[in-house]
This record gives sequence, structure tokens and C-alpha cells, in this order.
Amino acid sequence: MRAAVHRAVEELLVSDPGELTLPAVATRAGVHPTTLYRRWGSVGELLADVATSRFTGDLVVPDTGSLRGDLERWAADVAADLADPDTLALLRAAVGVGESGACACIGDREEQIGSMLDREAARGNAVPTVERATDVLLGALYYRAVFTETPGTPEWARSLVDVLLPR
Amino acid sequence: MRAAVHRAVEELLVSDPGELTLPAVATRAGVHPTTLYRRWGSVGELLADVATSRFTGDLVVPDTGSLRGDLERWAADVAADLADPDTLALLRAAVGVGESGACACIGDREEQIGSMLDREAARGNAVPTVERATDVLLGALYYRAVFTETPGTPEWARSLVDVLLPR
Repeated sequence: MRAAVHRAVEELLVSDPGELTLPAVATRAGVHPTTLYRRWGSVGELLADVATSRFTGDLVVPDTGSLRGDLERWAADVAADLADPDTLALLRAAVGVGESGACACIGDREEQIGSMLDREAARGNAVPTVERATDVLLGALYYRAVFTETPGTPEWARSLVDVLLPR
Repeated sequence: MRAAVHRAVEELLVSDPGELTLPAVATRAGVHPTTLYRRWGSVGELLADVATSRFTGDLVVPDTGSLRGDLERWAADVAADLADPDTLALLRAAVGVGESGACACIGDREEQIGSMLDREAARGNAVPTVERATDVLLGALYYRAVFTETPGTPEWARSLVDVLLPR
């Protein structure tokens, strides 16, 4: 049932974003509206749930043997993900419903940065903080995707790692 | 008329964000709905117009005598602006309506970065590109405001300048 409802939300965001209501989602998913109201309460909570699923566990944390290599590959993967129009439609809609929806669009990406930094630290090397790496990488990647019309290319995404880890 | 409509949008975003429709704005602004439809066409276009006004010309570009000083003061001002709940409500709603609304939330802030960099270049000093400064400063500032629950403090905002201009 949850999968059918999530899929209905994603389809409506593409076909008819202005009509994203719980009754419309219920019709499309073939579920009684009451069930949706009971389980999610509002479109905002449902969108946050969809965003959490969508942005969690979707990227593989690279293991190239160096922090620079890991972060470069990962940043390019995030940029490619956010360049997808359907992903952006979900992201914008989730931001539109408020703080919980917006936070859900980060999923496990800060944790993924943490795990790459931890691995480098375990190799005995100095690493930036998760906060700083998040500012520089996720900040630029999400800003460019959401607030500009410039697509984030893989080359550009990799170049952000040079800002975080000057050569 | 435009000022009354903009004010009505800002008030509705605070009091009743789920009910932001052109008829509701018209009632609150004391304007006939047809006038709003004719001038703005949709809530999305109206929100983009309100966001453009709100985020353009609202910050003074500092002139402290050094690029570092200018950017530090300016970044702290942007962080303070984005920490305001009413500002965030407008920003989230504008992002929610799509690309034009989201882009409107940057207003003239990239141009402001450009003017600070140009002034430093005119003093004969090397400067980063506007693109890189935007990635690091606006990226982190907007990301933290929109996608996290952590407020951007003035100290944190100033510390971003050290990433862009290593000491």
C-alpha cells in the first residue's frame, strides 16, 4: 500500500503538480482517502515521507581508496540525481510544504559524507568536519539545482572537492 | 495596488499558507480577482514577483576596504535575513511553485557578490570567480536555511569566507 501511494505521489508531481491533494493521491493509488488521512494526516507529511524514502539509500558511498576520489565521485552522483526533472519536482514540492519536507530531501546524505570522512580519519589523515563538508558540497549542489537554471555538471561537482580539500 | 497585493501574499503566508490562492489574495488585498488573474496569471507567477521584490535591493553591499571584510559582513546579513521565519515562509512557498519562483529568491545577491569581487579586482588583487563565490557563500547560506533545522549564526556565516579565501 505504501509503495502504491508513494508511486501515485511521484506520478501526480509529474503529470499534475497543482492537484496534489490526499483525495487525488487516493484515487490514483486505488486506496480509500480515509486511509491516507489516518496514516499521513496531510499532504505535507505524505510528501516528507516520500522524500525521505527517495533520498535515503539511493546513492552508493564510493570507496576509491582516497577521500578526494570518494567525494568527487559522490558529488558527481548527487549532481546527476538532482539534475533529474522528476527528482527536482519532488524536491521543490517537499520544500514548499515546510521545514519537515525540506529536511527530508537530504535523506542520508550528511551521514554518507560522515562515513567517507570517518574512513579517511581511520587511515590516520586529517579531515574537515562533517559540517564544513556539508556546507561546501551539499550547499553548492542543492543551491545550484534548486535556485538556478544552471545544471550542475559532473566536472563542476568534482571541482567543489578542491574547495573543501585544497591541493 | 501592487504593494497591497504583495502585502496580502506575505500576510497569508504567515497566517494561512495552505490557503494561498488568487481569490484569497484578492479578498485580503481588496482587489477584484479578475485583476489578479490578468496581471499575474497564477499564484506561481505572483509568488515569483513577490520574491523578486523581497530579495532585491534589501541588503546594502558593505564597503569595509577589504574583500574579506565585505564578504564577512554581507554573509552575516544574508544569514540573518534567511533566519527570519516570515522570509523563510516566502522562500519555501516560492520554491514550491517551481523554477521561476525559486530563482526569484536569489534576487540581486549574485550581482552583489560580483560587485564586491569587482571592487577588489580594481584594487589590483586576485579574486575568485563569481560562480565559485556563489557556490561557497550562497550555497551554504541557502542550504542551511532551507534544508536544515540549524540556524545560520553570524559567526558561522563569516567562517564561510575563510573557505573561499583561505588565510
